[in-house]
Amino acid sequence: MASALAAAREAALEGEVPVGAAITLEGQIVAVAANAPRRLHDPTAHAEMQVIRAAARLLARDRLEDCDLWVTLEPCAMCAGAIAHARIRRLYYGASDPKGGAVEYGPRFFSQPTCHHRPDVYGGIGAREAGDLLRDFFAARR
Amino acid sequence: MASALAAAREAALEGEVPVGAAITLEGQIVAVAANAPRRLHDPTAHAEMQVIRAAARLLARDRLEDCDLWVTLEPCAMCAGAIAHARIRRLYYGASDPKGGAVEYGPRFFSQPTCHHRPDVYGGIGAREAGDLLRDFFAARR
Repeated sequence: MASALAAAREAALEGEVPVGAAITLEGQIVAVAANAPRRLHDPTAHAEMQVIRAAARLLARDRLEDCDLWVTLEPCAMCAGAIAHARIRRLYYGASDPKGGAVEYGPRFFSQPTCHHRPDVYGGIGAREAGDLLRDFFAARR
Repeated sequence: MASALAAAREAALEGEVPVGAAITLEGQIVAVAANAPRRLHDPTAHAEMQVIRAAARLLARDRLEDCDLWVTLEPCAMCAGAIAHARIRRLYYGASDPKGGAVEYGPRFFSQPTCHHRPDVYGGIGAREAGDLLRDFFAARR
């Protein structure tokens, strides 16, 4: 989660909403990525999407069933869907997101009968630091 | 929708689940893409994701509020989330997807309070041809 938080801090410096993610395999980091939709002109470029794409490319396969994903914010519906498609083993996330989250909030996607893979989910990991980064970012833009 | 169906047929020839998508702006096609997660080693590479990324890259912006998306199958949660993030104006889709859809089925994402943009939605466009393509594909693999 330290690497994901570092990526989130870098995103803030680029003017992007500060969210970062990492993927690990057997305890080793495979890929780290930050939220970057504005910089990349890509509305799908959330941190989770970027890190899943990077890890799948590096491992040359489209299923990451032995990988764990760490992200500083509760995933949205798009990212929760991608986590299920990628068959991620464990999901660790930081701050909860009542406005846009899809794990504890909104569609609670992993509890839907149309969700075909449910990772083990651990919320609240590094939540204070992840939440502070987001609050500071939005406070500075007001 | 004819272009999206053509892309779906090409996906089947590549051994990918046959789903295709197109994005139009003022009645002109901006981008066409097919489902390609296996070929690209990218679990996020559904047709809708590929076409949104291509159109955003071409238009050099991360919001496509003046664009319409055409896809041969009801979008899943990942793709419905991406459609909302991209601020797509109108969504036209073909076959319904009771097993994995997120528009009429499962999370019905565009009706969730955590969904921040709802396109106008038109289902059942070219549904018979889109559904036949999927049925033929899965029947041939059994």
